[in-house]
Amino acid sequence: MDRNSLLISDQVHAKAKAARVARLATLDANRAPHMVPICFIYDGSFFYTAIDRKPKSVAPTQLARLKNISTAPQVALLIDEYDEDWSRLWYVLVRGEAALVSAAAERGRALTQLRAKYPQYRSGMLPDNAPIVRITPERITSWGKIDRKNT
Amino acid sequence: MDRNSLLISDQVHAKAKAARVARLATLDANRAPHMVPICFIYDGSFFYTAIDRKPKSVAPTQLARLKNISTAPQVALLIDEYDEDWSRLWYVLVRGEAALVSAAAERGRALTQLRAKYPQYRSGMLPDNAPIVRITPERITSWGKIDRKNT
Repeated sequence: MDRNSLLISDQVHAKAKAARVARLATLDANRAPHMVPICFIYDGSFFYTAIDRKPKSVAPTQLARLKNISTAPQVALLIDEYDEDWSRLWYVLVRGEAALVSAAAERGRALTQLRAKYPQYRSGMLPDNAPIVRITPERITSWGKIDRKNT
Repeated sequence: MDRNSLLISDQVHAKAKAARVARLATLDANRAPHMVPICFIYDGSFFYTAIDRKPKSVAPTQLARLKNISTAPQVALLIDEYDEDWSRLWYVLVRGEAALVSAAAERGRALTQLRAKYPQYRSGMLPDNAPIVRITPERITSWGKIDRKNT
């Protein structure tokens, strides 16, 4: 399940690691698509995202993305950057399954990496008991100018 | 089916109209989520996106997004902009159904508006026979600092 078994290039790996935002698609109770932007980390094997303290309209356990993955684990994660120069466009599409992480060691690693990547998380916005979602990639595909140097 | 019947604010309407990119989630043959970034226009009632001449790895009719909507019309469209100042984050989530447009008048209007919004389309990258997809919104929800002036 590491990136070598998924055959992704160093460039795709680097883009996935560096991106500041991704869009997560889940399936609702009717198996229709739902989507939110997320902050995340990629450790080379798994993607992790947290339910943080950005304002939410409902309690964390009622959040659509959590209810959705508990009934349908299939998700898609899209990493891309828009550019008016369309010769520079690229995206990385990750398809796989999502699950809430319960093991303390894995939760701890994810929290540490999320706080390291996002300074915004260091001021109490990501509590130690935040729900953490692991996305296990089953397929990673990419398109566009991702494998060219200096783009 | 116009924006008034969907009760969206002027600010949401303006954001949806002005955004240069959106992410489109469709359902694949196994009803698992698939996603791509798209260029689009919003005319206040419908969203339109074209299969343009950006390089593709397969013929247009074989594109995942077109195969997907022909078997499962439910889609989600997410419009958002990342900002390192998280107090400025917002998104607009459109859920609805997608269909290929066949009527010549509707295709013509969409092509005209796409070329008006994206100068990149004016140099032959959007041929008159390009497949055009209409997304009919059934629900539009928004989150974040979208209704505040000057953000």
